[in-house]
Amino acid sequence: MLTRIDHVGIACRDLESKIAFYEASLGLTVVSREVHEDQGVREAMLQVADGPSGASYVQLLQPLSPDTPVGRFLERRGEGVHHVGYGVADITTALASIGATGIRLLDARPRHGSMGASIAFLHPADMGGVLTELVQAPLLGTG
Amino acid sequence: MLTRIDHVGIACRDLESKIAFYEASLGLTVVSREVHEDQGVREAMLQVADGPSGASYVQLLQPLSPDTPVGRFLERRGEGVHHVGYGVADITTALASIGATGIRLLDARPRHGSMGASIAFLHPADMGGVLTELVQAPLLGTG
Repeated sequence: MLTRIDHVGIACRDLESKIAFYEASLGLTVVSREVHEDQGVREAMLQVADGPSGASYVQLLQPLSPDTPVGRFLERRGEGVHHVGYGVADITTALASIGATGIRLLDARPRHGSMGASIAFLHPADMGGVLTELVQAPLLGTG
Repeated sequence: MLTRIDHVGIACRDLESKIAFYEASLGLTVVSREVHEDQGVREAMLQVADGPSGASYVQLLQPLSPDTPVGRFLERRGEGVHHVGYGVADITTALASIGATGIRLLDARPRHGSMGASIAFLHPADMGGVLTELVQAPLLGTG
């Protein structure tokens, strides 16, 4: 069902300084910057590697305000890994299959994510404490 | 410098039940089980995908006792993402490069990791709260 580790989502207090840090220390490169008002985050995708089923990224997340999911995460846990995103070929099929096992879906239907992907989150309490995201990359050429 | 997201290391209280969960919910398959007395963990590697620079895994970690790094992590944070491992082609060169930026190395020299890899950890306090591991996969055919 899973095609790759699409990204590791990392919560941080200052996006620009964290981007500069990852560029300088690990040699990563920013390939996208977006603001998702609905998720309450400003984010950057830094490419780690490309692969046959899609690329892998470090996703840096800065909350738009303290009263957002990532803002509350920072208040509670400090900076660190916020979630893990796995690639899937068909997110609708994957959600149906996973939902059938009893895992609660935070998104019953896919919604728009980073870089044109379709995404959905699974409930961390049902995933052993790991906020887990499914990512279906956009079809090439269709935007 | 980084060639892939090699694995996401997830701390859990009961390795066998968590393996069964990941197999049933996300369709992953165990490719290795190991006990690392020096790290105080019993672990399983579940393959997510293969790729040109090596495979990617979910690594499930159960502490051998409460008085181990993963045991203390579980006590402090509960189950969840413990660390992120990135693939590198040459771990000695990568450690020298990263150490030169001022990041503290928990392992100044590579040591033996899962599945014959050479690994080294970077200090989480210098990595924005993320315990970060470098992984050089073993050369094929040399064990």
